[in-house]
Amino acid sequence: MKKQHRRNFLKKSGLVAGALSTATLVSACTESSKEKSSIAIPNILSNPTFEWRIVTTWPPNFPVLGEAVVQLSKDLEVMSAGRLKIKVYGAGELVPAFEVFDAVTQGAVQMAHGVAYYWAGKIPAAMFFGVVPFGFNAQQMNAWLYYGGGLKLWEELYAPFGLVPFPCGNTGVQMGGWFNREINSVEDFQGIKMRIPGLGGKVLAKTGGTAMNVAGGEIYTSLERGVIDATEWIGPYHDYIMGFHKVAKYYYYPGWHEPGPTLEMFVNKKAFEVLPDDIQEMIRTASAKYNMLVLSEFEAKNNLYLQKILDESNVQLKAFPSEVLNTLKKNSEEVLQEVTEADAFSKKIYESFVKFKAQINSWNNTSEKAISPYL
Amino acid sequence: MKKQHRRNFLKKSGLVAGALSTATLVSACTESSKEKSSIAIPNILSNPTFEWRIVTTWPPNFPVLGEAVVQLSKDLEVMSAGRLKIKVYGAGELVPAFEVFDAVTQGAVQMAHGVAYYWAGKIPAAMFFGVVPFGFNAQQMNAWLYYGGGLKLWEELYAPFGLVPFPCGNTGVQMGGWFNREINSVEDFQGIKMRIPGLGGKVLAKTGGTAMNVAGGEIYTSLERGVIDATEWIGPYHDYIMGFHKVAKYYYYPGWHEPGPTLEMFVNKKAFEVLPDDIQEMIRTASAKYNMLVLSEFEAKNNLYLQKILDESNVQLKAFPSEVLNTLKKNSEEVLQEVTEADAFSKKIYESFVKFKAQINSWNNTSEKAISPYL
Repeated sequence: MKKQHRRNFLKKSGLVAGALSTATLVSACTESSKEKSSIAIPNILSNPTFEWRIVTTWPPNFPVLGEAVVQLSKDLEVMSAGRLKIKVYGAGELVPAFEVFDAVTQGAVQMAHGVAYYWAGKIPAAMFFGVVPFGFNAQQMNAWLYYGGGLKLWEELYAPFGLVPFPCGNTGVQMGGWFNREINSVEDFQGIKMRIPGLGGKVLAKTGGTAMNVAGGEIYTSLERGVIDATEWIGPYHDYIMGFHKVAKYYYYPGWHEPGPTLEMFVNKKAFEVLPDDIQEMIRTASAKYNMLVLSEFEAKNNLYLQKILDESNVQLKAFPSEVLNTLKKNSEEVLQEVTEADAFSKKIYESFVKFKAQINSWNNTSEKAISPYL
Repeated sequence: MKKQHRRNFLKKSGLVAGALSTATLVSACTESSKEKSSIAIPNILSNPTFEWRIVTTWPPNFPVLGEAVVQLSKDLEVMSAGRLKIKVYGAGELVPAFEVFDAVTQGAVQMAHGVAYYWAGKIPAAMFFGVVPFGFNAQQMNAWLYYGGGLKLWEELYAPFGLVPFPCGNTGVQMGGWFNREINSVEDFQGIKMRIPGLGGKVLAKTGGTAMNVAGGEIYTSLERGVIDATEWIGPYHDYIMGFHKVAKYYYYPGWHEPGPTLEMFVNKKAFEVLPDDIQEMIRTASAKYNMLVLSEFEAKNNLYLQKILDESNVQLKAFPSEVLNTLKKNSEEVLQEVTEADAFSKKIYESFVKFKAQINSWNNTSEKAISPYL
């Protein structure tokens, strides 16, 4: 390497100290001294800057979910005093939504934000770290992840892909969906065409319906034209933005198929390990913060939009009959058994899930479930 | 100011750059270069170290609550690369539990961890930021605090005391308490002597009982000797450690008086404002992390200890009858009205609380409450 090239390389890589003359060193040091007045910016010589990219499965600036990723990145930049800068990309801006897993595995980008069940096609066990029908609600999920061994299993599952996962948000209980057919009994599911992905779709099929695969942008028209009889989406806030109340008669609850989906942030393991301890801990801590804040925002906003929907349309808000929910639950348990039996890692996680669920349900009976009717 | 004095002053204050000779500057800069190998430690000239103390209302290393404070302090030290070191003191180690508010107000220490309702004697409105009978559960409380204006009101309430509050933990739904008398109707509360502090005690009094003030260390003996007929404490994990199952016949649920108490961390405002932006954000973020983690740990552990209690004793686990809970709820509402009418700030917060509660209850009916029986 020629001297000048080497110097440029060192300059670029920030490793100037040993290579340059005292004069250059003094000038570099004075440069850095100038920055001392704003205390938060550490010496650039001792603290390399990391320029990262995060890709998400959400459209750019998607309410709550996409916004949280933007805010998370800002927090990390503030906490690291500018040493970790993360540029946020919405779905399709850099890579398509469902390719973010591979993009981070390959190291093309350092981070992603999405939901683990999106990867169930290639890693069946990933479904447990998003949500399963009649599974945990948000509070129970966090208890399992952080103090019931769930997160350790998740880390083990993602390790072969070179990824480190972090729980990073929860939508809370979703709605059951928009229907143009009344559901008074299990028989009403016969032949129903519903846009419902994943395990929920499998349960619907077992209950007599047909799970349809419709892209987000086409759901409204499909519902309007009768191509589908029903669709699920998220909750009142996001559903309102989609305008489903203009083309559906009934809005059913509760979201039996998604009682509290956890959102995930995952990081390329090699990129993570290069970070100094302080920045690693910032990522861990910030993901936990947004794990809670996203849920809080959903909780605060959903009712406001539920009321808007009811005020601005003739949609009828209806609960699934108890008989229907009991059948869906039985069918969900069968589906879960089937899919976990086909995959060793799923089976291992399912055992942890079932054991923790029995414990937390027992506690729930004397806590949340017992007080809830009186709040 | 003499030259030598001025130089010493500048050295001490870290403002060396303009004042010293080039030789000194080079040596200072080389010093700092040596530290480059351990990336996480920022230049000490540009990054002062803060040595803080946090006092708590918990005994030293108190399970979950005290342990979380220790872990929070460690996280902050790691994230700040050693620039914020916080020494943790249990109740009585530096100041008594109920004097931590004044200690931080006066600036004797920088931080504290406790529950806001402890200060209701001097600031009645503080009760809303702990918990009120039949108030919010943990999830609803967070929604109100972060996205319903609650935290802003809390900051406004603590500002005259020179404090910045942060939500920092939640016990989840507590238990209703230990009884040596069966509660089959409201009449069974007549003349009952129960250790139950705060608003819960006022509600008990309105329902015919006598609220007793018994220090933590004396509850067991008081219950054993019949000085009191009943006591509330926290939940199965902490109650088990207290050994109440050895001296009580019945363990009642749910904890109507504390459906989800928020724990608080508060910081002396002047001390907080001196911190650089990055460390301020670390404190904000870490408090949010522990706000969720503490709840998760309670959720995960309570059932294990409830089972231990039932396995190791003859205690009967019993639900308060619905008629009793409805009466306690009516009486709670009356007590809340009375105490808020007597205090302008309480009234202001009560309005925000009541409005948000109506909204979130409505959403709860279609979400958590609707799915809960089927999980």
